[in-house]
Amino acid sequence: MENQDKKRDRIIEIALKRFAHYGLSKTTMNEIADDLSMSKALLYYYFPDKNALYSTVINQLFEVHAIEIKKEIDQSASSAEALSIYLRKRHEFIKKYYILLEFNKSFNKESFAQKQNSFSTIRAKEKSFLTNILAQGIQSGEFKIDDPEKTEALIFDALLGIRFVVLEYNNSPQPDDELFNTILEKQQLLSDLIIRGLKA
Amino acid sequence: MENQDKKRDRIIEIALKRFAHYGLSKTTMNEIADDLSMSKALLYYYFPDKNALYSTVINQLFEVHAIEIKKEIDQSASSAEALSIYLRKRHEFIKKYYILLEFNKSFNKESFAQKQNSFSTIRAKEKSFLTNILAQGIQSGEFKIDDPEKTEALIFDALLGIRFVVLEYNNSPQPDDELFNTILEKQQLLSDLIIRGLKA
Repeated sequence: MENQDKKRDRIIEIALKRFAHYGLSKTTMNEIADDLSMSKALLYYYFPDKNALYSTVINQLFEVHAIEIKKEIDQSASSAEALSIYLRKRHEFIKKYYILLEFNKSFNKESFAQKQNSFSTIRAKEKSFLTNILAQGIQSGEFKIDDPEKTEALIFDALLGIRFVVLEYNNSPQPDDELFNTILEKQQLLSDLIIRGLKA
Repeated sequence: MENQDKKRDRIIEIALKRFAHYGLSKTTMNEIADDLSMSKALLYYYFPDKNALYSTVINQLFEVHAIEIKKEIDQSASSAEALSIYLRKRHEFIKKYYILLEFNKSFNKESFAQKQNSFSTIRAKEKSFLTNILAQGIQSGEFKIDDPEKTEALIFDALLGIRFVVLEYNNSPQPDDELFNTILEKQQLLSDLIIRGLKA
C-alpha cells in the first residue's frame, strides 16, 4: 500500500513538470508514462484518464498554495490586509503556473467547460476562503457587506471578466506574456479598488 | 435642403422603431424603405448601408440620452452621486434599448467587431463623460484616484466583463430577459462597490 502511494505521488510529481512546461493540451499520457519509465497500462491503473490526472495535480498544488496563504493571512493585521494578501497570492500563483493552468490558451466554450470541471474543487475552497475573510471583516466591523457570499461571487466574476475583456479587445488566440501581465495588472487595480470599497 | 433634412430625420425615426423592435440583424433596408413608402434607391442615397444607418440611429439616441443625464448630474450634490446617476442611467438606457443594442444576441467576435465600430463614437463620449466626473471628484477631494483615465477604462472593462462572465456561465446563445436582468443587477452591485472604493 505504501509503495502504491509512493508510485502515485511520483506520477503526480512528474505530471506536474510536464503540465507546467507544456500545458494540459500538449501533454500526452504516453509522454508521462515514458518520463516515469512506466507502462501505459500501469499509469492508467492509477489515473483513468489525463483529465483525472490533471485535476489531481492542480488540486494538490492548490493545497500547498492554500497552506502558504493561510500562514501569511494569520499574521495579517486587518481583514483588508488579509483580502489583499489573498488576492496578491492568487495572482502570484496564476502567474507562476500560467502554462499549467493554460491561461496562455484562448478562451473557448469547450476548454472552459472542461477546466471548470477540473477547477471545481479549487473553486469551492477558494470560495469558502474568501467568504470567511469577508465574514470576519464584517464581524470585526471593518467591512460593510450585506451578503458575503454574493460579494465573493461578485469579486470572482469581476476578476474573471477582466480577463475575458482583455482577451477580446486584443482578439488574441494565444495571449503572450505581455498580454497576460496586462490582465494581472488590471485585476490588481480592480482588487485594490474593491478592497477599498468594502471598508465600512 | 430643409426638405432633405426632414427626409433624413424621418428615415432615422422609422429605422429606430424597426431596430428597437427587431434588432440590427433582423432588420433589412427593404423593410425600412417599405415602412417609409420610399424607394430603396432613395434610402441608399441618404445612407450607403444598413450599418451606417444603424450607427446614426444609436448615436442620435445617445445624444438625447447624454443631455438627459447631464441635466440630472448638474443637480447632483457630490461626485459619487454624479457617478451613481451616470451608471444608473446607463443601465436604464441599455435596458430600454436592449434589442436595438442587440444585447439579446450572443457575443461573437464578428458582431463584437462590427458593434465596436458602430459604438465607437458613443464610447468616446462616454469615456470623456466618466473621466470628467472622476476628475471633478479628485479636484473636490472627494475621490482618491491616481489616474482618472485608467480608472475610467477599468470601470468600463469590469462592467463589460460581468456581462461576458454571466453569458459564459449560462452558456446561453440567446440570453432572455431574466439573464439580462441578472447581468444588470450584478453590474449595479459592482458599480456601487467601485463608487465606495473611489472615495478618499
